[in-house]
Amino acid sequence: MGLFISMEGPDGSGKTLQMDLLEKKLREEGYDIIRSREPGGTPVGEAIRSILLEPSFTGMDAVTEALLFAAARRQHVMEKIRPALAEGKIVLLDRYIDSSLVYQGIGRELGMDYVQMINDPAIDGLLPDVTFLVYVDYEEGLRRKRLQSGHTMDRLEEEEEDFHRMINKGYYSLAERDPKRVILIDGARSPEEVAGEIWQKMQEYLEKL
Amino acid sequence: MGLFISMEGPDGSGKTLQMDLLEKKLREEGYDIIRSREPGGTPVGEAIRSILLEPSFTGMDAVTEALLFAAARRQHVMEKIRPALAEGKIVLLDRYIDSSLVYQGIGRELGMDYVQMINDPAIDGLLPDVTFLVYVDYEEGLRRKRLQSGHTMDRLEEEEEDFHRMINKGYYSLAERDPKRVILIDGARSPEEVAGEIWQKMQEYLEKL
Repeated sequence: MGLFISMEGPDGSGKTLQMDLLEKKLREEGYDIIRSREPGGTPVGEAIRSILLEPSFTGMDAVTEALLFAAARRQHVMEKIRPALAEGKIVLLDRYIDSSLVYQGIGRELGMDYVQMINDPAIDGLLPDVTFLVYVDYEEGLRRKRLQSGHTMDRLEEEEEDFHRMINKGYYSLAERDPKRVILIDGARSPEEVAGEIWQKMQEYLEKL
Repeated sequence: MGLFISMEGPDGSGKTLQMDLLEKKLREEGYDIIRSREPGGTPVGEAIRSILLEPSFTGMDAVTEALLFAAARRQHVMEKIRPALAEGKIVLLDRYIDSSLVYQGIGRELGMDYVQMINDPAIDGLLPDVTFLVYVDYEEGLRRKRLQSGHTMDRLEEEEEDFHRMINKGYYSLAERDPKRVILIDGARSPEEVAGEIWQKMQEYLEKL
């Protein structure tokens, strides 16, 4: 029944580079894979993505946003992910429900349970076999940045920092909530080291294919 | 706190003409009204509407569709309907949650309870003060049509008829479920007679304004 892998992580964690490296490695090893991203992945999903990214829609309500992500996700699951898994393929997905739980649940302050409820009809019970959460300890990164620059932050910078801090904490709590599925990967190392650890953890899942 | 009126009815019931007549009458009487429609009514909602109406999206999943309607509705409620009601206005809305319950719940066979669950975050507890359901008894209309034409229907025509029949029954069940809010209006009369009855029923609500 294929293998469903999602990759998650806050901005700047190196998630996308790790997607590239994992995709390349899997292809080299001869696996039949489909790589996709959220929101998007289907014609309907990409149309929804352009609404979500439209800069003039500044007044978009947070629940509207969560429902649009869920709509794009549902189409993705039904049109692309489930059929690919049914064909025995590996699905490599850049962001899935965890991104909604963190960005809408924590970032937009809707609450993770509420966002889970909105997404239940979207995912239709389908969770990844494994989610690699590329994590960078934000406090530690920030502490180092401050020490290096000697810079004191103003109020707006502090607010932005608070947002990133919440997102990072939200991601961390996901790994605590579902440690069997969500594997925390320390992103504060060289890309090669991070990719090496991900590839090592992948062996267990590839064996089951 | 304003007055929230929605108008519902199957295609061909004369709903839109009745909207026009009610709007005209209310304006003549000097009421401050906002007329809007679903899906749409806001820039975000109209963008969602164009996805829903895009002819090339033939593979759109029924749950995706329900989530998109819900997303447009949420934006409508938060950006337009609630603020207008808070200013004491009359909101006259062409279709609201009842259309989703019937068209996605019954027409797309998702079930009314499931569609209600998807819409709960969208409407945020806001139901119309009154919903006029312009109803035409489909069986009766069909019987007359057949008698007049002497036409026997083929399989495809029968299937389409079945769909309309289900939609009509779904609408009827809404009025049975919530008779205090959903007022059944017999649409099988002259437009003037129908408008007259709607205007008569409106008095009770206008008195409370």
